[in-house]
Amino acid sequence: MNDSYLNFVNSPLGARVARSLGLPKPEVLRRYRADAPEFDGIVAVGAGPSPQLLDALADVVAHIGMTSVAHPGAGLWVPLANRHGLMTGRFEPAAPAGGSQARVRALVFDASGIDSSAQLDSLYTFFHDALRSLDQSGRIIVLGRPPESRATPRAWTAQRALEGVTRSLGKEARRGIAANLIYVAQGAESAVEATLRFFLSPRSAYVSGQTVRIGTAPATLPADFDWTQPLAGQRAVVTGAARGIGAAIANVLAAQGAHVIGIDIPSATAALDAAMRQIGGTALAFDIAAPETPAQIAAALDELGVDVFVHNAGITKDKTIAKMSAAAWRDVIDINLSAQERIDDALLEAGTLRNGGRIVCVSSISGIAGNLGQTNYAASKAGVIGRVQSMAPFLAQRGITINAVAPGFIETQMTAKMPLALREAGRRMNSMSQGGQPADVAQAIAWLAHPGSAGVTGQLVRVCGQSLIGA
Amino acid sequence: MNDSYLNFVNSPLGARVARSLGLPKPEVLRRYRADAPEFDGIVAVGAGPSPQLLDALADVVAHIGMTSVAHPGAGLWVPLANRHGLMTGRFEPAAPAGGSQARVRALVFDASGIDSSAQLDSLYTFFHDALRSLDQSGRIIVLGRPPESRATPRAWTAQRALEGVTRSLGKEARRGIAANLIYVAQGAESAVEATLRFFLSPRSAYVSGQTVRIGTAPATLPADFDWTQPLAGQRAVVTGAARGIGAAIANVLAAQGAHVIGIDIPSATAALDAAMRQIGGTALAFDIAAPETPAQIAAALDELGVDVFVHNAGITKDKTIAKMSAAAWRDVIDINLSAQERIDDALLEAGTLRNGGRIVCVSSISGIAGNLGQTNYAASKAGVIGRVQSMAPFLAQRGITINAVAPGFIETQMTAKMPLALREAGRRMNSMSQGGQPADVAQAIAWLAHPGSAGVTGQLVRVCGQSLIGA
Repeated sequence: MNDSYLNFVNSPLGARVARSLGLPKPEVLRRYRADAPEFDGIVAVGAGPSPQLLDALADVVAHIGMTSVAHPGAGLWVPLANRHGLMTGRFEPAAPAGGSQARVRALVFDASGIDSSAQLDSLYTFFHDALRSLDQSGRIIVLGRPPESRATPRAWTAQRALEGVTRSLGKEARRGIAANLIYVAQGAESAVEATLRFFLSPRSAYVSGQTVRIGTAPATLPADFDWTQPLAGQRAVVTGAARGIGAAIANVLAAQGAHVIGIDIPSATAALDAAMRQIGGTALAFDIAAPETPAQIAAALDELGVDVFVHNAGITKDKTIAKMSAAAWRDVIDINLSAQERIDDALLEAGTLRNGGRIVCVSSISGIAGNLGQTNYAASKAGVIGRVQSMAPFLAQRGITINAVAPGFIETQMTAKMPLALREAGRRMNSMSQGGQPADVAQAIAWLAHPGSAGVTGQLVRVCGQSLIGA
Repeated sequence: MNDSYLNFVNSPLGARVARSLGLPKPEVLRRYRADAPEFDGIVAVGAGPSPQLLDALADVVAHIGMTSVAHPGAGLWVPLANRHGLMTGRFEPAAPAGGSQARVRALVFDASGIDSSAQLDSLYTFFHDALRSLDQSGRIIVLGRPPESRATPRAWTAQRALEGVTRSLGKEARRGIAANLIYVAQGAESAVEATLRFFLSPRSAYVSGQTVRIGTAPATLPADFDWTQPLAGQRAVVTGAARGIGAAIANVLAAQGAHVIGIDIPSATAALDAAMRQIGGTALAFDIAAPETPAQIAAALDELGVDVFVHNAGITKDKTIAKMSAAAWRDVIDINLSAQERIDDALLEAGTLRNGGRIVCVSSISGIAGNLGQTNYAASKAGVIGRVQSMAPFLAQRGITINAVAPGFIETQMTAKMPLALREAGRRMNSMSQGGQPADVAQAIAWLAHPGSAGVTGQLVRVCGQSLIGA
């Protein structure tokens, strides 16, 4: 739970030692705090030819009260910003040494109009000029159109190329800067706000190198909600809520206004009760793997219904396959994957999960890349990705979204018990040079659970600080 | 080009030193050699419920002259094998210590009938029993159905879970063992042979952790060809053929019977001429980035036409974006990406690339994951992925396939110049604990160029020894 190296190199003495020895100096990430403004400072805006998303962007920047500057390549920004009542000015590049220039909190580039590989040079010009102006824990957001929606192979190709740029920027920016790519479908411009807010906010501190698609979901995007309490009046279930990441999820959903129903195994009742008491939630003791549990959960929740269901509960029973017991295989698959399937079936059949609701599942980078000693766990977590992809079209008829988050190295009691060398490798092998916090996973889940995230479904988002480990 | 650590730990003294210090001991990979049998030894066959691909598998195993054993869970194999005239027997697990038991060359599991997460336990049983019997440089192949083709979310989920199992097996098997997953579409059973041969062969030594899809392409699967010289009578163009990976591609395509036309820049004419002379190929000096080149290439090739076009030429000009020159950005995008687009347009418009032909592009793991100092290169290589995805449906009308390979750390003159620490990290951070050879990339390209690979299109296959680095 405690990254002593991170603390050390951020102390006055440690910073000197690290500098003189050339050691990595992970940044203390700027994270969301209820007692600090979520949004402040300047967004620097860039754009390629024929940008199509500046209007939607200006709307959001105005709503959240940030100011902006326009790179010379984004000349269209100025009249738009004025129309949206947004304070704006001209971009002035930082001096090569950094230093005295006013720094910006976010670089946002509208690449939506790029339809050939040659036009990618507009990204070069913007990030070449602007990257040094970006603050610590700053944000890089590239906006594009889903490649497969483009009319020509060349436009598809150019939009697909954005991934390479964004991920490289995430790897070279350092200083706690996160870089992400958002593909906005034609017609989904009005559905971008919740996602843009998340990626501009300190809530997304440990989400980097990700590609997110926003589709059209006009039928289910609510007309209005309170941005400070977006889950007000909603009921959210979190499995495995007694401790660790599950408890963090419960906390964040409660902070956003939800009434949380925490589920955990009967042996964790005391911890679960305590966790739920803290947030005014409801504790339900269930073994999610028991065959009778899905019907019992549906019955327990039936009267009031559920708006958000977070499948977080999971276990590991690691062994190489030759040494793994049949029970270790079966239990991990059953608890991490099959139980989710049975519970969703019961809730959907009973109509307990309301139309327009949200399902969020916890996968893992092991489910993406596989892992030594985790054939069972990786199968279950890869299966979770399949669940999200397969259920999304089916649930869309009810306006329900289903998505997954895949945590990387997160500082928990579990990782605290890892051997030192493995733990250090896991912590440092990512663009943030540090592990994430349970709250980082929870904030990503809250974004996916948000009423404004109606256009996001069938997707997998890693919360891994852009971990090197992939597939 | 020379991995001295690999050589050292595989010497008698080095092996003792490595053992006593607990150092990793990368295996000397078994690679294809013209003077050794490509296929020999035993395939151990396993299956889940209702396997649908055993018939196709038996056909291939019989053709290549391997023998087989059936795991108790694959009882259907025995009568099938008999029908295909295949020598077969019962599987006997190796003793826990390994040792005296006859070892097998490949473990092949037919998971095509698995339609629920609980049925995944059949994979556990087979690999639990069989993994210790697998030889050094052995092969693990899991056969499934494309998840998105399944009728129910649960079947989709279970098929998707196979990726987690296969990738974990690749990471824990060590000893030079490669593990891959092949999804065979319904109706594409007759199109599996070229792909199964590749993944069973020492040709795929450095391809691990990959997922390949075989679709239906009956119209373009040739009735017959010579498996030892599948490209006999064909003309194959390779760009950047003077040296390195390009020269290796030219060699392998020539060894498979193709007449190779090597293209490289005029300044490399001497090297190109020498490389082409060795294989009886034709040398063409062109700067592929010059605007007039596409038409000139089309004109030069027009009379006889082309069957295979390999876009291999590429450059790097690495710098972090703030320090990168506009020319470094432009040149890398233009040579690595835009030039490919212009050349394909010219060849397709002129009909120079024959119907039923093959395009293979060289991408990179940088294009997948991004890389520090390579915003330009990663953009170009991510764009190549977009090219393959976007062109595939369009080219299918002509029976042309387009695919990409993404090399990981390959031992070349370029990597020999890297700083030691970076080079060692690149070499060891994969399941083979070593870099690949240019021939490994070339063999993967030859598989995609194969007339029998008509069902493989729009895909990206990494040649990276299951590098940790992903996206």
